[in-house]
Amino acid sequence: MTIQGAVPRGRPVAPLRIPQEMNRLSPPALLVVDAQAALDDPRWGRRNNPDAERTIGSLLAAWRAEGAPVVHVHHLPTDPNSTFQGTGSTTKPEALPLDGEWVVWKSTPSAFAATSLVRLLETAGIDRLAICGFVTENSVEATARAAGTLGYRTQVIADACATFDKRDLDGRLWCAEEVHALSLANLNGDYAKVVSASDFL
Amino acid sequence: MTIQGAVPRGRPVAPLRIPQEMNRLSPPALLVVDAQAALDDPRWGRRNNPDAERTIGSLLAAWRAEGAPVVHVHHLPTDPNSTFQGTGSTTKPEALPLDGEWVVWKSTPSAFAATSLVRLLETAGIDRLAICGFVTENSVEATARAAGTLGYRTQVIADACATFDKRDLDGRLWCAEEVHALSLANLNGDYAKVVSASDFL
Repeated sequence: MTIQGAVPRGRPVAPLRIPQEMNRLSPPALLVVDAQAALDDPRWGRRNNPDAERTIGSLLAAWRAEGAPVVHVHHLPTDPNSTFQGTGSTTKPEALPLDGEWVVWKSTPSAFAATSLVRLLETAGIDRLAICGFVTENSVEATARAAGTLGYRTQVIADACATFDKRDLDGRLWCAEEVHALSLANLNGDYAKVVSASDFL
Repeated sequence: MTIQGAVPRGRPVAPLRIPQEMNRLSPPALLVVDAQAALDDPRWGRRNNPDAERTIGSLLAAWRAEGAPVVHVHHLPTDPNSTFQGTGSTTKPEALPLDGEWVVWKSTPSAFAATSLVRLLETAGIDRLAICGFVTENSVEATARAAGTLGYRTQVIADACATFDKRDLDGRLWCAEEVHALSLANLNGDYAKVVSASDFL
């Protein structure tokens, strides 16, 4: 079975292969969100959890060892000044997709908005997601909120996510650890279960 | 023109009327989220912005004076212990829908998940939303994130929203003002423009 993934204009279009065995009740799909070089741009500022990439690499190895489904969600910016432009779009080395793994390109923070992700998951019979990646309160949270409200049983792997210091609209600077913690608190319960990578490894 | 709204089982089903004049380019629809008695339950704890209901009432009056579209988003809980059960589902007096206004019932935090909202907005030619209500970082934020990623030009009216103190997964207690401020900071830019009621009144 082949499904055409959502791919950006100008990139080679390769059919995505769904292994036959995924049509049975499957383990959760691992969604790796925005693990791209853009996040190394100094414009993002100070970051928390420098181990996130290494942890994502370990999770990918575990998923692959089980033959479990992996979805790489990559950001394709519409803003010409985005850090995801040009070389910023390249995948971080710890998260390079293997041949046959799914890549879904999105142009908003949510992996579910105007992408083929729902169709892809439905075709494969996947109703459980484990989400990790960048940045916690933006694309990770938007994707997890969408997943939870769409009815997917959703886990967010806290220590495989990271974010950056942020200034609020009143000018107060919140450190990345605070932004991260409150984002996960907002997600836990109504949208997802927040877990740690050790639950899988 | 009539459109059947999403209504809970067991409630009377009234067709929603879309005024003819809404098929032209319209002002933003005012979305009032979860303005229900449930939020008065003491289980929610300490709240910020006690003026939110009065501000919502003023916004509704302004929208109605213009003949501009109003959508009341109400929560229909699936959890039998939800504060939205029973009398908790009743609308706050400041936000009672008038005859002919739209009411959309949702059972997740997002007004866009498994509801008729997209169809309703598309039929009426509405692509701009002004969102207010409860609670800031949950149903308001989920609805605003979904709206922004779906391509609606979205505003969130900060002082017509409110939330409650919240404990994060590490046990730290965040006051409602902090939860509110960081939620609005997360929304502003990628999903919505955060504004104040005085921009409309």
